[in-house]
Amino acid sequence: MTKQENTVSLKNIIKASKNVYQHLSPTPLRYYQQLSDSIGAKVWLKHENHNPTCAFKVRGGINCVAQLSKEQRQAGLYTASTGNHGQSIAYASKLFGAKAVVYVPKNANSGKVAAMQSYGAKVVHFGDNFDQCRAAALEAANQNKGLFIGPTDDILINGVGSYGLEIMNDLPDVDVIIVPVGAGSGICATAMVAKTINPDIKIIGVQSAQAPAQQLSWLKRELIEADNTTIAEGVATGVPFINTQETMWKYVDEFVLVDDKDIIKANKILSETTHNLIEEASASTFAAALQLKEQLKDKSVVLVMSGGNISMQNLSKLIGD
Amino acid sequence: MTKQENTVSLKNIIKASKNVYQHLSPTPLRYYQQLSDSIGAKVWLKHENHNPTCAFKVRGGINCVAQLSKEQRQAGLYTASTGNHGQSIAYASKLFGAKAVVYVPKNANSGKVAAMQSYGAKVVHFGDNFDQCRAAALEAANQNKGLFIGPTDDILINGVGSYGLEIMNDLPDVDVIIVPVGAGSGICATAMVAKTINPDIKIIGVQSAQAPAQQLSWLKRELIEADNTTIAEGVATGVPFINTQETMWKYVDEFVLVDDKDIIKANKILSETTHNLIEEASASTFAAALQLKEQLKDKSVVLVMSGGNISMQNLSKLIGD
Repeated sequence: MTKQENTVSLKNIIKASKNVYQHLSPTPLRYYQQLSDSIGAKVWLKHENHNPTCAFKVRGGINCVAQLSKEQRQAGLYTASTGNHGQSIAYASKLFGAKAVVYVPKNANSGKVAAMQSYGAKVVHFGDNFDQCRAAALEAANQNKGLFIGPTDDILINGVGSYGLEIMNDLPDVDVIIVPVGAGSGICATAMVAKTINPDIKIIGVQSAQAPAQQLSWLKRELIEADNTTIAEGVATGVPFINTQETMWKYVDEFVLVDDKDIIKANKILSETTHNLIEEASASTFAAALQLKEQLKDKSVVLVMSGGNISMQNLSKLIGD
Repeated sequence: MTKQENTVSLKNIIKASKNVYQHLSPTPLRYYQQLSDSIGAKVWLKHENHNPTCAFKVRGGINCVAQLSKEQRQAGLYTASTGNHGQSIAYASKLFGAKAVVYVPKNANSGKVAAMQSYGAKVVHFGDNFDQCRAAALEAANQNKGLFIGPTDDILINGVGSYGLEIMNDLPDVDVIIVPVGAGSGICATAMVAKTINPDIKIIGVQSAQAPAQQLSWLKRELIEADNTTIAEGVATGVPFINTQETMWKYVDEFVLVDDKDIIKANKILSETTHNLIEEASASTFAAALQLKEQLKDKSVVLVMSGGNISMQNLSKLIGD
C-alpha cells in the first residue's frame, strides 16, 4: 500500500468499503419517533454500536490489516489505545492472522482489555495516559520491526468512512449529522463523504466540556491542549491531532461542548428509548441535539452512535439515578 | 392470503423472507470467545435484539401485514400482547399504513407500551393477563369487522423463520440451537428450518422454572397450565398454545428449565461481555447452556437472543448486584 492510495477521499473511502464489507455488514440507520418528538426534528440514530467490538473503529482496523503483506502481519502491529481503537486493531488482526500488541494505560477499562485479549492481542499496561502508551508502542514497533498504527492514520479514516456511505445511501436527504469527536477519525470520515456528496449537509462535532481540546483547537485553528477529566472515554482527548484538525477546519460547520452531567441524562433517555447499550461519547450527540433544538427544528438529523462500550460501573450509575 | 399458503413449512418460510427483507436486514450471528471459554463450546449469539422493536417478532408482523388487502389494513388489526408481539404488529402496521389496536394488561411494561404508541398503535389497557386481553381483542375485532391476530398464527411463524434461515446460511455446521420459549413461535420457526435442512441439529427449548407451562406440556404431550411468576416477560407463558406445542412435540429434542436467579446471573455476564442490552428471555438460553455444559462440550452452539427489551428497573437490579 502506498501513501497516495490511502489519502482520505471519497474515492478511497469507496475502495476501502470493499475491504470492510468482506467482513462486516452495514449497520442500521434507525428512525425514532420518541427522540424526534423530544427534539422537534426527524431523528435517526446510526447504530455503530451494532458492529463487532461494538464501535465504528473496527471498520478502519479491517481496511488497514486487509492491505498488509503476509510479512507485515507476521512482524506484528503495534498500537496504543484507551479502548475502542485497540479493540479494532485486535479484532482485525485476528481476522487476518496478524500479530497485535496494544499498549493501554494502567487504569484502562477492564472490559475493553478483556475484549482485546479475547481477540488474541497482547495487551501491555503502561503509563498513565494515551500519549505515554503511544511513545512506548512506537518504540516497541521500531525495536521489533513491526508496524506502528496511530489512531488517526488515513488508512483507518478511509475504512471508517464506510459508515458515512451508509448514511448517505439510506438517507440522501439528511440535513445535519452530529458526530462525537475523540481522535477525530469518525467525524473526518463522515464529513469527507457527506460534504463531497452534498456540501449543504451540516456537520456538527461534539466533545465534553470536561475535555475540550479538539473543540478549542478547531475554534482557534491551532493545536491546543486542554484538561481531560470527562467520563466519556470515546471523546476523552486532551491532546489534539493535526491531521484530523486540518480536515475538521475544512469540513466541520460547528463544534459544541456538552457537560458530562447532560451526557449522562441523554444516555438514560437513549437507553430507555432504544434498548441499546450506548457509550457516553455516543450519548453526547443527543445531548448536543437537545442543546441545539432551535436550529434543528424540522430538519432530518442523524446522530452517530459511535459505540456501546459503556462500563458496567457507569451503566449502573446511569440507570440508578 | 389463504390458509394453505401460510401453513408453516420451509418453503413458506423462504417465501415469507421475501416480505421480511423488503423492510429488514439480516441480524448478526456473532461468535464470542469469552462465552465460548465459559461453556467449553463454540458459542454464537443470534442478535435478534438488533431488529427494529428490539425483538425477533417484528419479522412475523411484517410478513402478516404485507399480505393484507387495503380494506383489511383500513378495517384494522386487533391483537393482545404483554409486549414484543404487540410492538411487532404496531411497527408493521405503521410500515403499511394499517390501523392497529393492541390490548395489554393493566400492569404492562411501560417502555413497551410507549414504543407501541410511538408506532401509532392504539393501546388499550385491559385486565390482568394475556388471556383476558386476548378475549377482549377478539371481541373488539368482531365488533369492528377487523382482523384478530394471535401471537402464534402460522403467518407470523413463517415470517419469524427468516432468522432460522440466516442462522443456517451463516453457520451451516451448527450442532445445537437453544431458543427461549414464550408462545413458541420462535422455536417452532427455528426448528422447522433447521430440522428440515439437517435433522441432526439439536433444538433445545428453555423456559423459566417460575413459568413452566410450555415445558410441562411438551414433556407430557398434552396442554398443561402452570404458575407464571417469572420476571422474564419473553418466556412468561402460563397457558400453552396447541399449534406451537404440536410442532414442538415433533421437532424439539430437549426442553430445560432455568431458575430466574440463574437467568439474572447469565444476563449480567452477557451484558458485560457483549455490550448489548439483553432481555431476560434471551439470557435464559445462556443460563441453559451453562447448565448443559457437559453435553455441549466442543459443539457449535447458537443461542438465540430473542430480544433486548429489558425494563430499566430490572436492568438496574441486574447491574447493581
